[in-house]
Amino acid sequence: RRPVKGKILHRSIGRGLRLLRTMATASEKAAPILGKLEELNIKCPVWEHAAAFTVDEWKPIIKEQNMEGIVTKTLFLKDKKDQLHLVAAAEQSAVDMKAFGKDARFAKDEVMSATLNVEKGSVSPFSLLNDKDKKVKVHVDTTLLNHGGKILFHPGTNERTVAITKDELLAFIKALAYEVNTVEMSAGGAPKPASKPAAPKDSTAKKAAPEKKELEAGETKLGIEYPKTEEYFADWYSQVITRSDMLDYYDVSGCYILRPWAFKIWKIIQGFFGAEIEDMGVEDCYFPMFVSKGALEREKEHVEGFAPEVAWVTKSGESDLSEHIAIRPTSETVMYPAYAKWVQSYRDLPIRLNQWCNVVRWEFSHPQPFIRTREFLWQEGHSAFANKPEAETEVFNILDLYARIYEEYLAVPVIKGKKSEKEKFAGGDFTTTVEAFIPVTGRGVQGATSHHLGQNFSKMFGIKFEDPTKSDGSHTYAYQNSWGCTTRTVGVMIMVHGDDRGLVMPPMVSPLQVVIIPCGIAAKTPQAEREALYNECEKLATRLKRVGVRSKADLRNNYSPGWRFADWELKGVPLRLELGPKDLAKQQTLACRRDVGGKDNKAPLPLESIETKVTDLLKQIQKDMFEKAKAERDSHVVEVREWKDFTPALNAKNMILAPVCADKEVEVNIKKRSAEESAEQLDDKAPSMGAKCLCIPFDQPDMPPGTKCIMSGKPAAFWALFGRSY
Amino acid sequence: RRPVKGKILHRSIGRGLRLLRTMATASEKAAPILGKLEELNIKCPVWEHAAAFTVDEWKPIIKEQNMEGIVTKTLFLKDKKDQLHLVAAAEQSAVDMKAFGKDARFAKDEVMSATLNVEKGSVSPFSLLNDKDKKVKVHVDTTLLNHGGKILFHPGTNERTVAITKDELLAFIKALAYEVNTVEMSAGGAPKPASKPAAPKDSTAKKAAPEKKELEAGETKLGIEYPKTEEYFADWYSQVITRSDMLDYYDVSGCYILRPWAFKIWKIIQGFFGAEIEDMGVEDCYFPMFVSKGALEREKEHVEGFAPEVAWVTKSGESDLSEHIAIRPTSETVMYPAYAKWVQSYRDLPIRLNQWCNVVRWEFSHPQPFIRTREFLWQEGHSAFANKPEAETEVFNILDLYARIYEEYLAVPVIKGKKSEKEKFAGGDFTTTVEAFIPVTGRGVQGATSHHLGQNFSKMFGIKFEDPTKSDGSHTYAYQNSWGCTTRTVGVMIMVHGDDRGLVMPPMVSPLQVVIIPCGIAAKTPQAEREALYNECEKLATRLKRVGVRSKADLRNNYSPGWRFADWELKGVPLRLELGPKDLAKQQTLACRRDVGGKDNKAPLPLESIETKVTDLLKQIQKDMFEKAKAERDSHVVEVREWKDFTPALNAKNMILAPVCADKEVEVNIKKRSAEESAEQLDDKAPSMGAKCLCIPFDQPDMPPGTKCIMSGKPAAFWALFGRSY
Repeated sequence: RRPVKGKILHRSIGRGLRLLRTMATASEKAAPILGKLEELNIKCPVWEHAAAFTVDEWKPIIKEQNMEGIVTKTLFLKDKKDQLHLVAAAEQSAVDMKAFGKDARFAKDEVMSATLNVEKGSVSPFSLLNDKDKKVKVHVDTTLLNHGGKILFHPGTNERTVAITKDELLAFIKALAYEVNTVEMSAGGAPKPASKPAAPKDSTAKKAAPEKKELEAGETKLGIEYPKTEEYFADWYSQVITRSDMLDYYDVSGCYILRPWAFKIWKIIQGFFGAEIEDMGVEDCYFPMFVSKGALEREKEHVEGFAPEVAWVTKSGESDLSEHIAIRPTSETVMYPAYAKWVQSYRDLPIRLNQWCNVVRWEFSHPQPFIRTREFLWQEGHSAFANKPEAETEVFNILDLYARIYEEYLAVPVIKGKKSEKEKFAGGDFTTTVEAFIPVTGRGVQGATSHHLGQNFSKMFGIKFEDPTKSDGSHTYAYQNSWGCTTRTVGVMIMVHGDDRGLVMPPMVSPLQVVIIPCGIAAKTPQAEREALYNECEKLATRLKRVGVRSKADLRNNYSPGWRFADWELKGVPLRLELGPKDLAKQQTLACRRDVGGKDNKAPLPLESIETKVTDLLKQIQKDMFEKAKAERDSHVVEVREWKDFTPALNAKNMILAPVCADKEVEVNIKKRSAEESAEQLDDKAPSMGAKCLCIPFDQPDMPPGTKCIMSGKPAAFWALFGRSY
Repeated sequence: RRPVKGKILHRSIGRGLRLLRTMATASEKAAPILGKLEELNIKCPVWEHAAAFTVDEWKPIIKEQNMEGIVTKTLFLKDKKDQLHLVAAAEQSAVDMKAFGKDARFAKDEVMSATLNVEKGSVSPFSLLNDKDKKVKVHVDTTLLNHGGKILFHPGTNERTVAITKDELLAFIKALAYEVNTVEMSAGGAPKPASKPAAPKDSTAKKAAPEKKELEAGETKLGIEYPKTEEYFADWYSQVITRSDMLDYYDVSGCYILRPWAFKIWKIIQGFFGAEIEDMGVEDCYFPMFVSKGALEREKEHVEGFAPEVAWVTKSGESDLSEHIAIRPTSETVMYPAYAKWVQSYRDLPIRLNQWCNVVRWEFSHPQPFIRTREFLWQEGHSAFANKPEAETEVFNILDLYARIYEEYLAVPVIKGKKSEKEKFAGGDFTTTVEAFIPVTGRGVQGATSHHLGQNFSKMFGIKFEDPTKSDGSHTYAYQNSWGCTTRTVGVMIMVHGDDRGLVMPPMVSPLQVVIIPCGIAAKTPQAEREALYNECEKLATRLKRVGVRSKADLRNNYSPGWRFADWELKGVPLRLELGPKDLAKQQTLACRRDVGGKDNKAPLPLESIETKVTDLLKQIQKDMFEKAKAERDSHVVEVREWKDFTPALNAKNMILAPVCADKEVEVNIKKRSAEESAEQLDDKAPSMGAKCLCIPFDQPDMPPGTKCIMSGKPAAFWALFGRSY
């Protein structure tokens, strides 16, 4: 049979051509390197896999696909004299960057890209193939050379892995006419900060160490090896979330496993927010995850905003679908055709629906657990009202609830405001937002957004009703909102409160609020006394549970108390109660706060009134954590009136309040110029990311007459909040 | 750059070829018909769209794509003399099948397929093109011919729609050398049952009619037009779920919108089951919805079971993904690689995780809302234990909870049992199930399943630990279970309890348990009296809400009480309280049960003790609904010992308990032979679907020595439950 209009064949060939034309496929990136290996007669296995942006993402893939070989990391450095260095090392080796030249630091991405034609996360000695001018010095960790087995590297792309022997590695490098400098590195354990280590902010970090050393034979090593400093922040974050059992990596890039210790936080947020919106009259429902192409593309601006990130289902089993189907990146286009059907009269309004679901945005930026993931969980509310004031009231009521999630539950202060025209929701009228702040990196992070869509979508989808105020039968379009809050909340909480020992959880969201650990038991303690103590611990847990405190006695006697202390500290449990025979004799327990360092973190509590004492203490912890975070955040919001002060303030890890006019190019220019100036001022030390407009805060500082826009010099219209951001 | 090993080009061409080869694409089905239209110089618009299996699925698509034209239905009938009839009619016309020949009935799917080469739901006059022997008589509804505008038909596939004029329609039919018989049909309203209408089982159906007639001017017509009989069951079901605002159709085939009235039932089930498993020690979590090909295909039997139904993501935005990624049909292969990582020692066991999520099975069977959908919501529990007995205990504990969901919440009796080897979960050791029964169709329906996976998956995924009972360092593989319950629950409840007036909800799951409606207000009733009555209604609702009864006063004075009665009856609210001035004077309210027909459904209740009275009455309703359903189910479970009685019992809409031996081919033969015999015995009247093994009930009838297998004649091993099924 002939295909209709030759369309099918055409489409298929078109797809093939597009595939060949695409610039940056993994296969094409790998091709020259694999070609060179062939040329050198090096026969080695090549695995295809999901993109592995970090070693932590690579390792499960290596295990999964049974690749045999030592895991490596390759550093690309630049020293004071602008000499470039490529350092290939075993993953576990501690690389002392100073060893490679004065002030040697990570070279900027642009430098790496220009020199080696490779992206961050994909670099390896193979990338030397592209260093035509031989500008790079090559260093190889002796661990790799002495290892004996195969060595794993990415061939120009983090979607492939190659296993070669040390001889093959050296042959490859030498074929390119490089000298190889071999370097002995200290193996195992934590890499030491290369330059002056940031003095631990939290003085408990040192106090914790002795406890960690109290390990008994056979106990696993616990704890976090990286300090919570800007330099090691990504590694710290990755270790904290995995070792506390919050999250695990997964073999599809940008997707992560939310384990019960993290998921419970999300459930608590669901409980609070779900009950609040139900009281407001919002109902839960569930719409399909699939969107037809026609519906997805109905609202032009909206589809332009989301199209590049949309994942498409094109096959079922072995069959090609006749129409490709998108997975929702958000559900406006899924839900509003139905709204159009349901609304005939003003009596059918308002419609106020909410769903808790997964959405997919196939972003190409570097994924980060909780913060930026390709699949994520959220709630999305979608409403339609007969008039604008009602709709707008909802927008702000919901934003208030989002602020309460952050401030009352996660103990994270947020700034409420409106997004700029450039940053608002694609297709909406205006977007309101709550913006949080991550002190370590000095970056802002969007907390949650509540959008007023105006009549844009209702006009596109035909959500209209006979205007009851008019007698001529004319129609009015509904006023709509949409609003969403995601599992990013959990990531922000971790980044704000965590410390060198791991998570620090606000009591309101901690899966466990109190852990009770029996202490003071020695080998010679009689069994009866031991059991009596255990019973008291259980009793204490039960008393607390009865008053609604999430409590548990940890009686794992195969671990020392010290090990258990460290375990629950890593997991961030807000309050530990220690109970030993002496405490029991005094009818008291020793309460240790997770959030406080130094000597202030321990105090005895009488057992008699333990319920109210613990409840009060948890409230105090919640309050203190919020206030501490707020003081820190406040100290990093700087008002800047002249451009010359802008980039220095930004580089001092601040968010910046600056007066601006309403011209759209102002924020573009601010981003561009702050990026350029940072690059000059910082000498490769910091990201040269520019500042973006985070929001126009509702709470505006005074604006004296004559105040000028910091960028254009025109009269300023409002204060806007700028910062680097996630 | 050259592609690595020419693989990319090859793959792309291969895909094109496969696409051309595929037998059954919509385009290919449409091609001959569109070709014929072109040949006849009929130029008409053709729309592509998602498959529309029913008129109800087609209509939103027609609206969505702004197709102009009258909606049609085409019936394919066979009369007593084996004459075939094709009847093209307007959607709203009532087709009296008898008018087309003695005992004319729907022809079987096989007959339609053999004669017209078209599948159910895609048939139209265009399909006559394939009736080479001109065996079919053609009838056209005069409504189509007098309409004036365009007429919509499927061109051989329900994924396309064509719009033609009446002249073009007649030209097409005549070009194929058919006579056209024009038929006048009564328009509008409900189709009348063609043969002797099943007397309404529920005598309240007639009683309700007068209330429906009490409509005031301007009120929308409410209610269900189809009787709940086997013949109209699909239409009845479709109307009940859409008009009660439970569900809406969607433009991606097999996907449906769960509206709050249905979703709330799911939330109530979540509340019960979630709390129970938490008490058992199961924790909630969330794993990604995407599965890599490698993980999906690890367990051979498992992947064979699911592969044909797997949806694949192959593109993001405009880019092709380097590796295709599957959407979970279930999460064994998603979760178990992580389990393997987490389990090192027996101390890491058990792992007991659960998630509430969506899954996708791209089935090609006829989709049915709630019962069989391509995306559905469920919970899936996955556990790993150190030993088999612990694992098995969980399997049965979970099955008990599933039975409680059906029996205590949905008031639907179930039979617990084990699936046969043929029907068990792909890759598991054994499957336990709860099986429900739909009396109208006489078909069984699988309620929920709890699987023991043995060590099959743990061996494939490497979930192992050092055996603590051995000192030689040898490993043991974990024993695993998985168990799931879906939104099908809601569909089963609707099918079992619904009646000619709409939904009938068991109080335990009804989103609203009590609706209070003010009555006895006349036009002349003074405003003050009216308001006083409304206040009393609100007060009554508040009193009931305080004791946890989901209650609401319906004070919509723009609708008559009769209209509101019918509205809440359609939505299945278990109890209506009527409150009028006379009731108030007597300090009582008239309670009307939804589940009971006739005179017994109304009784006065004293307002004084209304809280306990209502609570008790709701409990009574719940109990009565279950007992009624159980009595009906029990009367349709028949013990059959000889094959000759099997098919007649099946065709009398029973489930059958029969003694069988353990040979695998026995159930295959039973299915085949019961299908063949049904076809003979029933003369096209009923589906000739065969009986499948629903389960081997735990509760076994006596098996006297010498009992023989009903099929093989060998000694019987157990009683198995057989039936047609969903």
